[in-house]
Amino acid sequence: MARDPRYDILFEPVKIGPVTTKNRFYQVPHCNGQGYRDPSAVAKMRGNKAAGGWGVLCTEQAEIHHTSEITPFIELRLWDDRDIPQLQKMSDAIHAENALAGIELAYNGPNGSNLYTREVPLGPSHLPIATFYYDPVQARAMDLSDIKNLRRWHKNAAIRAKRAGFDIIYVYAAHGFSIIQHFLSRRFNTRSDEYGGSLENRMRLLREITEDTKDAVGDTAAVAVRIAVDELMGESGLHKAEIEDVIGRMAETPDLWDVTLSDWGNDSRTSRFTEEAAEEEFVRGIKKLTTRPVVGVGRFTSPDLMVRQVKSGILDLIGAARPSIADPFLPNKIDEGRIDDIRECIGCNICVSGDMTMSPSRCTQNPAMGEEWRKGWHPEFIRSRESEARVLVVGGGPAGLEAARALGQRGYEVALAEAGTELGGRVARECRLPTLSAWGRVRDWRVGQINKMPNVSVYLDSKLDADQVLEFGFDHIVVATGSSWRRDGVAHYHLAALPNAGMPTLTPDDLMAGTRPKGKHVVLFDDDHYYMGGICAELLVKAGHHVTFVTPAAEVSTWTRNTLEQDKIQAKLINMGVDVIVSHAVATAQAGGVELACTFTGRKKALTCDDLVLVASRLPQDQLYLDLKARETDWGDIKTVRGIGDCWAPSTIAAAVYAGRRYAEEFDAPDIGDAVPFKRELAELLP
Amino acid sequence: MARDPRYDILFEPVKIGPVTTKNRFYQVPHCNGQGYRDPSAVAKMRGNKAAGGWGVLCTEQAEIHHTSEITPFIELRLWDDRDIPQLQKMSDAIHAENALAGIELAYNGPNGSNLYTREVPLGPSHLPIATFYYDPVQARAMDLSDIKNLRRWHKNAAIRAKRAGFDIIYVYAAHGFSIIQHFLSRRFNTRSDEYGGSLENRMRLLREITEDTKDAVGDTAAVAVRIAVDELMGESGLHKAEIEDVIGRMAETPDLWDVTLSDWGNDSRTSRFTEEAAEEEFVRGIKKLTTRPVVGVGRFTSPDLMVRQVKSGILDLIGAARPSIADPFLPNKIDEGRIDDIRECIGCNICVSGDMTMSPSRCTQNPAMGEEWRKGWHPEFIRSRESEARVLVVGGGPAGLEAARALGQRGYEVALAEAGTELGGRVARECRLPTLSAWGRVRDWRVGQINKMPNVSVYLDSKLDADQVLEFGFDHIVVATGSSWRRDGVAHYHLAALPNAGMPTLTPDDLMAGTRPKGKHVVLFDDDHYYMGGICAELLVKAGHHVTFVTPAAEVSTWTRNTLEQDKIQAKLINMGVDVIVSHAVATAQAGGVELACTFTGRKKALTCDDLVLVASRLPQDQLYLDLKARETDWGDIKTVRGIGDCWAPSTIAAAVYAGRRYAEEFDAPDIGDAVPFKRELAELLP
Repeated sequence: MARDPRYDILFEPVKIGPVTTKNRFYQVPHCNGQGYRDPSAVAKMRGNKAAGGWGVLCTEQAEIHHTSEITPFIELRLWDDRDIPQLQKMSDAIHAENALAGIELAYNGPNGSNLYTREVPLGPSHLPIATFYYDPVQARAMDLSDIKNLRRWHKNAAIRAKRAGFDIIYVYAAHGFSIIQHFLSRRFNTRSDEYGGSLENRMRLLREITEDTKDAVGDTAAVAVRIAVDELMGESGLHKAEIEDVIGRMAETPDLWDVTLSDWGNDSRTSRFTEEAAEEEFVRGIKKLTTRPVVGVGRFTSPDLMVRQVKSGILDLIGAARPSIADPFLPNKIDEGRIDDIRECIGCNICVSGDMTMSPSRCTQNPAMGEEWRKGWHPEFIRSRESEARVLVVGGGPAGLEAARALGQRGYEVALAEAGTELGGRVARECRLPTLSAWGRVRDWRVGQINKMPNVSVYLDSKLDADQVLEFGFDHIVVATGSSWRRDGVAHYHLAALPNAGMPTLTPDDLMAGTRPKGKHVVLFDDDHYYMGGICAELLVKAGHHVTFVTPAAEVSTWTRNTLEQDKIQAKLINMGVDVIVSHAVATAQAGGVELACTFTGRKKALTCDDLVLVASRLPQDQLYLDLKARETDWGDIKTVRGIGDCWAPSTIAAAVYAGRRYAEEFDAPDIGDAVPFKRELAELLP
Repeated sequence: MARDPRYDILFEPVKIGPVTTKNRFYQVPHCNGQGYRDPSAVAKMRGNKAAGGWGVLCTEQAEIHHTSEITPFIELRLWDDRDIPQLQKMSDAIHAENALAGIELAYNGPNGSNLYTREVPLGPSHLPIATFYYDPVQARAMDLSDIKNLRRWHKNAAIRAKRAGFDIIYVYAAHGFSIIQHFLSRRFNTRSDEYGGSLENRMRLLREITEDTKDAVGDTAAVAVRIAVDELMGESGLHKAEIEDVIGRMAETPDLWDVTLSDWGNDSRTSRFTEEAAEEEFVRGIKKLTTRPVVGVGRFTSPDLMVRQVKSGILDLIGAARPSIADPFLPNKIDEGRIDDIRECIGCNICVSGDMTMSPSRCTQNPAMGEEWRKGWHPEFIRSRESEARVLVVGGGPAGLEAARALGQRGYEVALAEAGTELGGRVARECRLPTLSAWGRVRDWRVGQINKMPNVSVYLDSKLDADQVLEFGFDHIVVATGSSWRRDGVAHYHLAALPNAGMPTLTPDDLMAGTRPKGKHVVLFDDDHYYMGGICAELLVKAGHHVTFVTPAAEVSTWTRNTLEQDKIQAKLINMGVDVIVSHAVATAQAGGVELACTFTGRKKALTCDDLVLVASRLPQDQLYLDLKARETDWGDIKTVRGIGDCWAPSTIAAAVYAGRRYAEEFDAPDIGDAVPFKRELAELLP
């Protein structure tokens, strides 16, 4: 198909100082949890995105000097020449697809505890390190010779970055991750010398480093400044008016302005809290201050919205991190008039959780994320079928849908049998919960793809038992029948059933099915700790109940720290009137009330309530799988029976989608036995 | 000097199956935060300990198969043959010093979320993963074929371990980190087949894997079983009577029993909570069940206590992790009659914090820990002086003491000037706080060493100003004048002074100096988050005050999660009657009360109190350093002036000791400019 002419503007080249990007699709720097540990994996991931049409691909943070590093996080390092080959591999992969390579040079300063190098961190002032943790480390206020050193380190890193093949070299002053931002900030910078006090003084380091970088590499590489426009804390933090003043004062100094919100949690808000283009109000007007191109983000997946950003003079370049992860081929799909094929980011931030847990970022929508190099999975393509085998997929949730879609893409004949009257499984249920509607995209994209495949047949309202499956005559059976929330409270705190003498008890499944508590006062006991407990509390409040949220963790939905949502969720619940009781468990329940136990001391206290909602763990719905396994003698021509997704072991939606893709990739692959099923790069052994 | 004959028993050889250790000093497996990322560093660290006289040196956990891994933690991997060279390097380093090499094979199962490999974790039952976090991942209950696979993986790992040169191969069932323990546990194992139910069934996997390992490698390698004797949760958990039953039933099956408490926090309790030999009650009697040697731990640093363990039939081998980190040469020192030279572990668990933050473990007592390979630092030795230079060390705290000691060891002429009337600085003050007395060992060992050095002179009561320093005629000046706790509340929450209209306010320095609040009701605002806040609360309660502990974190002393103390500290404070208010800050103070702000919503609430204790951040006491730097023209023959330790940037005692050692190592080393000051092993680049 041909490109819709109204999107032509997105494919105009844009000059960025001495380089020119072929179009306006710009993958801004983003982490991925692989960094220096898995360099070829990152290179391949970025290279695939370049093949998908992005004009610019940037790295994650690259630490420029050993005196500032952010262990435990795994980003890139450019500490000396030894790091160049890793980085060169990335820029080569990007150049091979005719795109520009950008690198985000970072000196974290007060944001790095230097737990690996044991160097004393540097900062504008004597202050404790500001990271995600409370490491007992303070930064030393820099003197003028320290600032001179920093400028030299940055300049040398820029020169190394250029040698490593990069076309766009960043000066980073955003997300609370850069000392340059700390210097800009009235909160962190309490200096009384020429680097503190007035705005001109506080921005001196930014100006000098930008000019240094231009001097060092600006003849052939573009110099970008990535800056925090607003910290969302009013005038006590960096805010738009102040940063517009900064940009105005050095408008033409960099070749590109990359504008963001700070901190990271504000810049990468989830769909639970913001819509697409949520940063527009903070970015509008900045283009008037400079002739240089401006790039910004907004979880953009809609080409019309992208066009509006450009035409209305808000942005020149459509920045994207998460949308480029969910669909590395988004630009090509717009170019080819395949808008319906865009795999839209659902804004869940499971990608962020990879970086936060020092593990390869995964993506709910794109299960190839992180597997591009080590398993050779491609975000768009998959090898053709190797036989005429017919596959029956039982269950139309995220695992089953993805298995059917990927098997269908391979050319296999697939039947997808769903017990219910709609596709999507847990995604269909969960996307009707408050604030999760964007998650329906997991289903929508897969259903859209499957509907185009003549070799995939979908059967709704088709609950199958083992007899029926054995009768059908498929060659391979994949069971993806999901999981159910436990009603007995078993999870982390209770490994055996919570003693319950007559307290009416509901699970998230009940709530999603429309059942509501009978009484006014509901105790919700969350021993799951991801999003479900918080969402259920929100649902109950909206349904008119008074909710007491009890968790054995020290905070509500604690695992959502890894998706940058925890503070926002707890604030929202408190503001909705939810009573929060942390570090306690519901130890026992009886009609009329529950007994709570302090997780530290075991001390008990009673709490009256009408109903109990248990957000505990889940049980695989694997009966069909077990029945089929038990009847292996009746299999006849059936070659394999596998369970995947939540019916195998309940986990995230991302894990379910991954299991579907993995099935389609591996069910007909050679048996490698006990071997490691992917490539990995080990530490070299030096003498 | 010669060995005291009463310690001869510690140097008897002990037969462990087919191998024999030369003495009873046994370094049990311990993590170090380096693992697969820094293999040569670990090899050198273990090799140094072997040179120090330990008969057996064991690795940290080594993951035996990619289907169970514990990202984000960095231990060893033995997933396939590619990992053998890393491990071989370790066993070679150990063998080079005539010691035995042990390896702890680990399959974590329900204790690993598999965030790196994305494999579905396996466990005895369908349950959520039990890690330090609440990862949204569940384990799949294993069927009999899974168990067969696990046995094969373990056997193959044992064979690989033997090929990698190991003499003692572990079957691991301890610390909550091994699936074998989960099978043993009635809590985790709810199976109804031959692997669940009765004790004989629950221990079947342990028995089978131990026998498999013996079959596979037992001809030349010893097979050790490391088992959790008690989980310290009474009869609901694994407990001594039950595990004695297990040991009785397979008494002679392994070649060695390594007995521990579970979980890790119970096995590695700090000196704040237990004394040396605290595990004795749990281990006593086990030797009666088996003729095989028994090893156990107890933070042993006293040779008399070690002798008692052996003579009274409690242990055959003196296990040590932390004491071997604090003093790798502990056995040699006993052997050489140098008891006073033993650098005793202070039981602070800062080593553990390395592993918990994925960074190289450091040690408060042994600053060479983690630097053995990358910087070539040795725990006992240091290169001789390179000149006749005379060095003045100003300040007798941990940084100054260690600098003076290490410079003295190098042969330099050193003067140590301390302003106060005792040595030790913050260590002297802090070791008088409740429960921290063992920390005084940091001072005691250094003072003991310095007292033997004719070339180090100590001057107490010698507060120096710049004029005096400039007059003395030293060649090098090192300023180690410490830090002071801020009285203005500036730390993480407040970057500018906490507004305070007349509320009497104390700091930890005041409390350590003996000042006490005037009123009954004290609000302690802890924005430091390591140990000091909790200790001060304890001190205040003991002094008769009612304490409300306010922290913007979600729990008390949250960073002590990394030292495995957090749950114990918060329990203790609650049990002492402290009111704990989490997720709140003291926003403002005035005579008679404070205003608290919720960290999530900003909502305010008033709290009446008589006094406020602020545990905030610290300010370097660097005036002398700054004065000297300002007078560089007056330096005359002074070649360098440096600031180290807390007066440079406040941090841990470990960081201060490290800074002292670093000064002594590097002050006369060639200037390497901006280069990385240590060796590092990068990830290989594969095609």
